[in-house]
Amino acid sequence: MEVLEQRILKDGTVADGGILKVDSFLNHQCDIGLYNEIGKEFRRHFTGEITKILTIEASGIGIACVAAQYFGVPVVFAKKNKSLNLDGALYTSVVRSYTYDREYTITVSNKFIKPEDKVLLIDDFLANGQAMHGLIDILNQAGATLVGIGIVIEKGFQNGGKSLREKGIDLYSLAIIDEMTPGGIRFRH
Amino acid sequence: MEVLEQRILKDGTVADGGILKVDSFLNHQCDIGLYNEIGKEFRRHFTGEITKILTIEASGIGIACVAAQYFGVPVVFAKKNKSLNLDGALYTSVVRSYTYDREYTITVSNKFIKPEDKVLLIDDFLANGQAMHGLIDILNQAGATLVGIGIVIEKGFQNGGKSLREKGIDLYSLAIIDEMTPGGIRFRH
Repeated sequence: MEVLEQRILKDGTVADGGILKVDSFLNHQCDIGLYNEIGKEFRRHFTGEITKILTIEASGIGIACVAAQYFGVPVVFAKKNKSLNLDGALYTSVVRSYTYDREYTITVSNKFIKPEDKVLLIDDFLANGQAMHGLIDILNQAGATLVGIGIVIEKGFQNGGKSLREKGIDLYSLAIIDEMTPGGIRFRH
Repeated sequence: MEVLEQRILKDGTVADGGILKVDSFLNHQCDIGLYNEIGKEFRRHFTGEITKILTIEASGIGIACVAAQYFGVPVVFAKKNKSLNLDGALYTSVVRSYTYDREYTITVSNKFIKPEDKVLLIDDFLANGQAMHGLIDILNQAGATLVGIGIVIEKGFQNGGKSLREKGIDLYSLAIIDEMTPGGIRFRH
């Protein structure tokens, strides 16, 4: 997605430890005009029937909610901490975060993902793919159908994208970074 | 806001401990059509100049991002955990959560709230007002101007709304609940 790649080149910075900082427009401050372009592009790609969008707190929520306007479906976001406000039967899955170097449990109420649901997963970043595997685990527990995965920025030099594509999943990343250093970013085309 | 009150009566449930569960449309599953109505209503009320919307992860993000479309401004969301991806100078404030019975530190990069910013705060719930006081503390650190606070559901029987209004803040809550029991919900009009 050209407008996204140009924005990453203009406003993104590469920090030590393989971290791409895009906090000025994607995951701390949110450029809602860009979010709308992202939503339109996901809709252009995922043309089949979708009944729900599932994402994970926190950075995925805003992107998913703006994108959902182009699909006309509700968003469900997996929670990272068990809330006192969640009760009843829950789907849970354990996710390893390399960014934060810890494991956490994601939780979705079983009221909101049903066997008849056709679900699009959306998130801001894909690196090792652990969060996506956790969400897929939850869809499997629910007996729901995974339609595809929409990612804003994929770190193509990590193995998450490869492992998901090898399963035959329709993974659509709007920008795939194959190499990044403080001196430059190379996208996959 | 009539459509919101009707939705709370239809789909909300009151659980033990003063908890109102609206997770089917507001803060776990998100009804994006309703989010748009909420955004329009905030815009109808807050007619002055606004340059940024500030919210707090996680439930506020989706509401703020959809609402921001009616203001044409970016959203900044305060983070509840210090991320490895945040560096540079940060504004922080300590917030006491009664729901989770713990304290947490909220963080905003100083790059995204500036002295010239005129800021609208948005969140899904207002109870004791601790999160709002934390965000106001951050605005004060930044020297930015607080234009007002838009809340979806205020628990009017807790003291957050009173304490903010006594400071002369333009607090606009779309639904204010004065009393709730498993048998019924009474709104303030």
